[in-house]
Amino acid sequence: MHDTGAYLAQMRETAPLVHNITNFVAMNVMANVLLAVGASPAMVHARVEVAEFAGLAQALTVNIGTADPEWGAAMEEAGTVMADNGRPWVMDPVGVAATTFRQDLSNRLIGLKPTVIRGNASEILTLAGLESTARGVDAGDTVSDAEEAARQLAGRTGGVVAVSGPVDYVTDGMRGYRIDNGHEMMGRITVMGCSLNGVIAAFCVDQPALEATAAALACYGLAGEIAGQSAKGPGSFQVAFLDALYGLSPEEATKGARITGA
Amino acid sequence: MHDTGAYLAQMRETAPLVHNITNFVAMNVMANVLLAVGASPAMVHARVEVAEFAGLAQALTVNIGTADPEWGAAMEEAGTVMADNGRPWVMDPVGVAATTFRQDLSNRLIGLKPTVIRGNASEILTLAGLESTARGVDAGDTVSDAEEAARQLAGRTGGVVAVSGPVDYVTDGMRGYRIDNGHEMMGRITVMGCSLNGVIAAFCVDQPALEATAAALACYGLAGEIAGQSAKGPGSFQVAFLDALYGLSPEEATKGARITGA
Amino acid sequence: MHDTGAYLAQMRETAPLVHNITNFVAMNVMANVLLAVGASPAMVHARVEVAEFAGLAQALTVNIGTADPEWGAAMEEAGTVMADNGRPWVMDPVGVAATTFRQDLSNRLIGLKPTVIRGNASEILTLAGLESTARGVDAGDTVSDAEEAARQLAGRTGGVVAVSGPVDYVTDGMRGYRIDNGHEMMGRITVMGCSLNGVIAAFCVDQPALEATAAALACYGLAGEIAGQSAKGPGSFQVAFLDALYGLSPEEATKGARITGA
Repeated sequence: MHDTGAYLAQMRETAPLVHNITNFVAMNVMANVLLAVGASPAMVHARVEVAEFAGLAQALTVNIGTADPEWGAAMEEAGTVMADNGRPWVMDPVGVAATTFRQDLSNRLIGLKPTVIRGNASEILTLAGLESTARGVDAGDTVSDAEEAARQLAGRTGGVVAVSGPVDYVTDGMRGYRIDNGHEMMGRITVMGCSLNGVIAAFCVDQPALEATAAALACYGLAGEIAGQSAKGPGSFQVAFLDALYGLSPEEATKGARITGA
Repeated sequence: MHDTGAYLAQMRETAPLVHNITNFVAMNVMANVLLAVGASPAMVHARVEVAEFAGLAQALTVNIGTADPEWGAAMEEAGTVMADNGRPWVMDPVGVAATTFRQDLSNRLIGLKPTVIRGNASEILTLAGLESTARGVDAGDTVSDAEEAARQLAGRTGGVVAVSGPVDYVTDGMRGYRIDNGHEMMGRITVMGCSLNGVIAAFCVDQPALEATAAALACYGLAGEIAGQSAKGPGSFQVAFLDALYGLSPEEATKGARITGA
Repeated sequence: MHDTGAYLAQMRETAPLVHNITNFVAMNVMANVLLAVGASPAMVHARVEVAEFAGLAQALTVNIGTADPEWGAAMEEAGTVMADNGRPWVMDPVGVAATTFRQDLSNRLIGLKPTVIRGNASEILTLAGLESTARGVDAGDTVSDAEEAARQLAGRTGGVVAVSGPVDYVTDGMRGYRIDNGHEMMGRITVMGCSLNGVIAAFCVDQPALEATAAALACYGLAGEIAGQSAKGPGSFQVAFLDALYGLSPEEATKGARITGA
């Protein structure tokens, strides 16, 4: 059995400083998600300080939603710092199918070999150069459609690729896991995926990326399941989700995680 | 009787992709409001991709709060795409009385003939070139003070103008409606108006703009009324509002809407 | 006894327009905090309009989180307008220890003599040029470690300096107060400090800065205590906090404030 709770406990013990260059929609919720799970968030994007700040951080996330060329350059700078220092960083290709700018920026970021790439099925298919039915920022494809693409992409970066969906899939190109935690209401509120990037990054600090990512996905999904028990709609779900993530114990995490080799 | 529920049902059936260039304060809540009501939101502003993205969207909203000249130019580009494609777009002149920049930008956007202009009474009076008692971003005038201004403005753009307030007014310059739904707590939380723009845009996809806007205003106000029944203050109101918008059925919408010809 | 409630009542009577140049993470919550407490918020940063808008506002806050050189220049412009007009403004040196850019910008802003500087202990120590153990944006030092630094800094600006922590300290360089209100959950959600800046600025309109700041800190902490009674975690705390701030009466404020001369 995957000892999910041990990864959660270790992350909380470290309480890593996670540097995020994320989109404007996600910033507040992502900071609260990181605080709730037990990490320390910082949102820093300005070229004038981004590399200096990255040097202080234990992990990084970059997210191409609401980016522009200047922010994209900041992501490359910060990613380079993490790569040079051997620290984990997570890249999220939000809506990559939508525009040429997003494809170009994503390709440059992939070239820096992120520790983890996380996206929905359509985004991972697009990144891998395969056909996708994406529209805007929503996934038009299923996770199982994207498993082969995820393995190819992981083979190219030497890192981990995670595909989010009803059942998540995570792979390092050779081994893989399916994580069957979560709640359908997670798709009815915004930036749930964006915020998850931070949790993955925090779990990856001083822990093996494939197993840590699987644990992060399971804990996140579990918090969603707990929140779903009391929520009456997306507003109360969002509130209950932060409470659940905060209250989740390592024992509950290990017991509730549904992770299977794949 | 205005069949408000039919407009809501049709919008949910379409689940339109709504492209928003809105202010930083509103982005997260507006995305959640659009998801809750049944549409698909995307926030995209960068010049490098804004026109390409607008080409994929079924509707657009632009909002001049927290804008700068670069963002303003992006709004003009995206508005032009929508106008050229005959797709609905909504313009919100937040705080237009406050600065010369806002007035200039608003005038340029009005020149592109938005499908719907939505603002509070002071904003609509300012846009129409009439006297307003505005201070900052709050309305210092009443909706009835602004009805003539709204008709004039609609006459100039050939579109619809909506004035938000305790009783909303919407007109295409000839016909009009008053919508008497809502709750006073809606004025005690931020970006309720900004988020409404997205709902209006979503309702206008493949539906006649005057009737669709009236329906959107009624549904939004109704969700506020439902939320107000359980809220203890602005925090719990915000949560209950998203739940109510998500849970609102077409039947409830038609039954609860208080729309009268004006 | 410090008549905290009288300061709250006077602020609500004025309902001041507070102009904020704050970070992206804080904008929405800060606007809701200001509305809940009874003030009128506006977020405006663009160079093209920032000075014009500052001329309309009764108070200003500037916050260096997520700033860049352009935003920094806007802060200097707006701060100058307030200083020239003798209106209160609050400066928050978020994470000043982290980067050279933040230190340079903070030093320029301090040179404009803000009415109030508010930060955590590490930020105030760093500003005063003393040793700090800061990491990222969290305080690594205790409030009592920073009291001498706060007095030195207040002596340099001729204004008030507030140090946030489990027990807050506020001084004008000569006199001081300790405020023992608050709840530990306030450290588990983001932007609680950033949002407080707005409340302090609102209280300082037409009221003496040292006493008004102490009152603002006490009211804010009291709302946290009330919220903490019902919250199950950081999600429900955030909701209950806005409700409590909205519902706080002057009588409760005076009765609950724990302010002592120091």
